[in-house]
Amino acid sequence: MNEFDLIRRYFTRSAPNAVLGVGDDAAIVRPSPGCDLHVSVDMLVEGRHFFADVDPRALGHKTLAVNLSDMAAMGAVPRWVVLSVALPTMDESWVAAFADGFFGLAERYGVAVIGGDTTRGPLTLSVTVFGETPHGQALRRDAAQVGDDIWVSGELGLAALAVRRRLKGDVEPPAEVLAAAQQRLDWPTPRVELGQALLPLARACLDVSDGLAGDLQHILERSNVGATLNFDELPTAPWLAERRRELADCIAAGGDDYELLFTADPGQHDAIAALANQLGVRLTRIGRIDAEAGLRVTDAAGQPLTLTRMGYDHFA
Amino acid sequence: MNEFDLIRRYFTRSAPNAVLGVGDDAAIVRPSPGCDLHVSVDMLVEGRHFFADVDPRALGHKTLAVNLSDMAAMGAVPRWVVLSVALPTMDESWVAAFADGFFGLAERYGVAVIGGDTTRGPLTLSVTVFGETPHGQALRRDAAQVGDDIWVSGELGLAALAVRRRLKGDVEPPAEVLAAAQQRLDWPTPRVELGQALLPLARACLDVSDGLAGDLQHILERSNVGATLNFDELPTAPWLAERRRELADCIAAGGDDYELLFTADPGQHDAIAALANQLGVRLTRIGRIDAEAGLRVTDAAGQPLTLTRMGYDHFA
Repeated sequence: MNEFDLIRRYFTRSAPNAVLGVGDDAAIVRPSPGCDLHVSVDMLVEGRHFFADVDPRALGHKTLAVNLSDMAAMGAVPRWVVLSVALPTMDESWVAAFADGFFGLAERYGVAVIGGDTTRGPLTLSVTVFGETPHGQALRRDAAQVGDDIWVSGELGLAALAVRRRLKGDVEPPAEVLAAAQQRLDWPTPRVELGQALLPLARACLDVSDGLAGDLQHILERSNVGATLNFDELPTAPWLAERRRELADCIAAGGDDYELLFTADPGQHDAIAALANQLGVRLTRIGRIDAEAGLRVTDAAGQPLTLTRMGYDHFA
Repeated sequence: MNEFDLIRRYFTRSAPNAVLGVGDDAAIVRPSPGCDLHVSVDMLVEGRHFFADVDPRALGHKTLAVNLSDMAAMGAVPRWVVLSVALPTMDESWVAAFADGFFGLAERYGVAVIGGDTTRGPLTLSVTVFGETPHGQALRRDAAQVGDDIWVSGELGLAALAVRRRLKGDVEPPAEVLAAAQQRLDWPTPRVELGQALLPLARACLDVSDGLAGDLQHILERSNVGATLNFDELPTAPWLAERRRELADCIAAGGDDYELLFTADPGQHDAIAALANQLGVRLTRIGRIDAEAGLRVTDAAGQPLTLTRMGYDHFA
């Protein structure tokens, strides 16, 4: 068995929901009748999307999690995934741990790996994920309407806090906060169940990956609307909440949250609150969609605030 | 407009066969009723799959061509593609030329780019392609039967000749042969029409990307059969044919041919010959499938030959 076969062995598992999995020129799957097919791709590069010393098990998890998060953002049921990997060297224990993290999450959601490519090169991971929604029901970015409430799931900012502490070193959270932040950065939980449950309740939706304020702009631009955001309502961890102004960039523009940001008719408020209880997920109303273009941020008293950093740009 | 927007602009074109193209968390497509969906991924890394000084237009073409070749190998109609790219620097003219080569081929086959991801990193390209065949009709590697003829399209070895001349420098073909070899290496033609036309005629099929002998092994292993190959019948360019023994590795194990290798019931011989005429593609019968496991190679007189190099391994 050569190194190539070895890698293949780690990434080849049964794909019960495929007609034909890994091993031919292409996989074969049979999409569900009456469903639309969703396709999304994310590429992760060492030094940009993750640190070189990242735990490979966590990296395997996160590589899939960020893609499942895209399916969650459309309300889609994730079904299949293909993975291409460039590896600088063949390190069997690294590959085994990466595969363990990746498949641990895949199996939790019944997602099958149906194809892959492995080559030697600078560590680079590219995942394409496929999911399904009933015809025409997907949660799209272009569906926000004036008067909609803006909601976000979970808490924002912890992952960005871990990154800031490591890169800038200008914050020193207590050990338990830092551990929670690192956990959020390394082991994000895609909101798959929430996304599907929002299909009948939400209008526009996306996942917060590059920072809340910048990501919200995508909804505004595609829906041709504006928004007012109440910064003091943004849900975050208690330690960050106590430093809300000082660490505003972590909370509103930090990235790596993988929470769902969605809009809904105000009449859905109670149903959304009930859903939060049912799923055990914090859902917070943080603003409203306006007719006036652009994003306005206010404090709890309605006074305008200026955010210094509005998102993340790989080439900035 | 920042650099990121600039890149997006080059890779975002209309996707008339998609419900929703680039710009949301995921694309939305509507698979054809009664069809199976094929999915394949290829990752290309600088210095391994292409030289650093490659013409970016040719690279754009080839990045898609190798993926379309996988669809051809299943007999599938290619429909959609997603592209992820890591780029070390933002060079607008490079990106424009790459996109030009990529979309030139995509448009020729009505393939829409429905998603992508762009990040800074060592030059790495990953393409996932989707195609369709009627339920259960795909050409699979596991479908060869004892007694089948083995066929190959086109001519083998020219692309490998260009690589060998550059890397080893131990061959010096005349300028016109070298130009043809370079053309084959840089601008491969995926056998998309041929693959679809073979659906009712062929049994097993794959595309020759890593070398004929090694790729044939994939059919043999998955179909649980063996084969005898007539080396002297392998179709190649005249200059290579005159040096068939000396340059055997280019012809039988060189890679980058992107021809179709397929098996068919001998009763299909005349129909396959007629198809060759109809499409203007050379189709050559090069061997037969045996019950005895393993690959035997013979010369024109039936005497056994030994090939020194049986394929390509990225980690070898």
